[in-house]
Amino acid sequence: MTDTFDFDRYDRVRPIRWTGDALELLDQRKLPFIVEYVRCETSDEVAEAIHALTVRGAPAIGIAAAWGVVLAARDVQAASGAEAAAALEPAMQRLNAARPTAVNLAWALARMRRVLASAGADWYEVIEREAHAIAAEDLAANRRMGALGAALIGEGSGVMTHCNTGSLATAGFGTALGVIRAGVAQGRIGKVYAGETRPWLQGARLTAWELQQDGIQPTLIADAAASHLMKTGAVQWVVVGADRICANGDTANKIGTYQLALAAKHHGVKFMVAAPSSTVDMETPDGDAIEIEERDPGELFGVGTVRTAAEQIAAWNPVFDVTPHTLIDAIVTERGVIEQPDEAKMRAAFG
Amino acid sequence: MTDTFDFDRYDRVRPIRWTGDALELLDQRKLPFIVEYVRCETSDEVAEAIHALTVRGAPAIGIAAAWGVVLAARDVQAASGAEAAAALEPAMQRLNAARPTAVNLAWALARMRRVLASAGADWYEVIEREAHAIAAEDLAANRRMGALGAALIGEGSGVMTHCNTGSLATAGFGTALGVIRAGVAQGRIGKVYAGETRPWLQGARLTAWELQQDGIQPTLIADAAASHLMKTGAVQWVVVGADRICANGDTANKIGTYQLALAAKHHGVKFMVAAPSSTVDMETPDGDAIEIEERDPGELFGVGTVRTAAEQIAAWNPVFDVTPHTLIDAIVTERGVIEQPDEAKMRAAFG
Repeated sequence: MTDTFDFDRYDRVRPIRWTGDALELLDQRKLPFIVEYVRCETSDEVAEAIHALTVRGAPAIGIAAAWGVVLAARDVQAASGAEAAAALEPAMQRLNAARPTAVNLAWALARMRRVLASAGADWYEVIEREAHAIAAEDLAANRRMGALGAALIGEGSGVMTHCNTGSLATAGFGTALGVIRAGVAQGRIGKVYAGETRPWLQGARLTAWELQQDGIQPTLIADAAASHLMKTGAVQWVVVGADRICANGDTANKIGTYQLALAAKHHGVKFMVAAPSSTVDMETPDGDAIEIEERDPGELFGVGTVRTAAEQIAAWNPVFDVTPHTLIDAIVTERGVIEQPDEAKMRAAFG
Repeated sequence: MTDTFDFDRYDRVRPIRWTGDALELLDQRKLPFIVEYVRCETSDEVAEAIHALTVRGAPAIGIAAAWGVVLAARDVQAASGAEAAAALEPAMQRLNAARPTAVNLAWALARMRRVLASAGADWYEVIEREAHAIAAEDLAANRRMGALGAALIGEGSGVMTHCNTGSLATAGFGTALGVIRAGVAQGRIGKVYAGETRPWLQGARLTAWELQQDGIQPTLIADAAASHLMKTGAVQWVVVGADRICANGDTANKIGTYQLALAAKHHGVKFMVAAPSSTVDMETPDGDAIEIEERDPGELFGVGTVRTAAEQIAAWNPVFDVTPHTLIDAIVTERGVIEQPDEAKMRAAFG
């Protein structure tokens, strides 16, 4: 076991590239078989890419939205940041509406608005710098979280994760997957299990692919096999990301997370949420106050363009669920670790 | 709410048809998009159809195998049942080997051997009658279970099921799905949720299709959405089938069942197992004594012939899991209902 390792060796995938006049997004709908960047030259193309899941993952869509503002700004003539902000507001609102649940989208746009408010004639350079900063801070936060989270994991542990919370979902390294990367690099984690994560199969398609790019070989399981896996004793930690963390520690994340937390509690498996502090939303008191996005039922009718379900069938397709803080052993952000989170500890850490 | 209803109205699908000189099997690999019966004129064609999953579901493959014996008998000249039994033994062994783990296959063949042993010159009529009886008894058992199980369900309930335990898996009506059919027919069940059941998607492909044939419209959910669904209060009962029920009530069933039972217990949702008494195995003391079959990891790499998972990925693909009896509120067989099952109650009911 070692505390230090070469981060770059375990962090090779980049989902978002800024070229100076366009945003290139690694098309996550086509992975793992086609590695292709989609070029967005307008703010609305970015909003559409966020909506269509070309780019996904709460931190990543925040970063993409920030660049979307920069793209919108290229058509704006304004003498000050405040004037530019007014002109950019419609584009920012369209970006914000692209996905309803993840708080990072609104958070990134709020940062852009804030710097605009005090910017002068050089407002374009200011927001371009801010978008760069959002991405750089995200990467740094993930590496910090990785080190903090991995330190909780005992040597030789088996770890399970859900969905994709990796480089692909962030500026790089990942949140929960960053903890797993760090844990593997430090020799703490012996085996990584990834739930396939229907309906979009982010685990099978994305997590498996990106870990392989860094030389980590995960084992895929059906989402429904997680409890049975825990019963075998193969897993000591479940490590997941978050789309929103409430003031009491309740956490919204990909559908299926709550089920893993219930199973973990039953089997004495520890449960960790790793997410940047921008995911913490102290304005939302608890999970009951979170709006859960429901997507097209058609996502359950097949895989890609292949129909598998009976025709004329109804489906219910919630994208997220809420894991109550009582089922969470640790919330890890770049600011530190909160064990057995509750409202008092959250308020102490995040005001 | 009504206790009586027209069973035939809710029981239109037949996976197995005997024509008098051939066996017709509804090809379950092609459902729900192609409704096509495969005609088997020899015992070995039946064995191949069982092996290839043209027909599936433990009761259904037992019935198919019984008809396979009758087909083999058409080429046999014998003066007595005992003489015919010797001539038929190779064919019976090939049928038995078609799915060596399925207990109903051996059970049905044992019934055919038993009646052959005491039959005289009319042995062909005897085994044809026995095959008819095996199918008829299965259908009657399912309808009895349906009435018994539905009586436990309160008016206006939401019910969730897993995999396919319906007409397609039996001679007709189904086990868990028979309970649901009866509950809908009696006005007890307002809404039916079906888990899609990765990796083979029996819920999405088969359960959805066969309920539609009877005018019941289920709502499909991702397997990982079950706990979130229960949290919303939409479900009062989970009703599943069984592959084996142990002497203490522990129940092996399709992977994912255990996870549903854990979630049900947490949410105060009732959990019912419906299966014919032939599924009860009093020789197996508890779930720990059941070896869990693991199938080809490749089943998790895609859907049908469409690859979705990253290349070179490892996978773990257990087919069943075990739900401990402490999580089961009722075991329903054609012999009656055992509430809060334990070893004493199981021994009282099944010796």
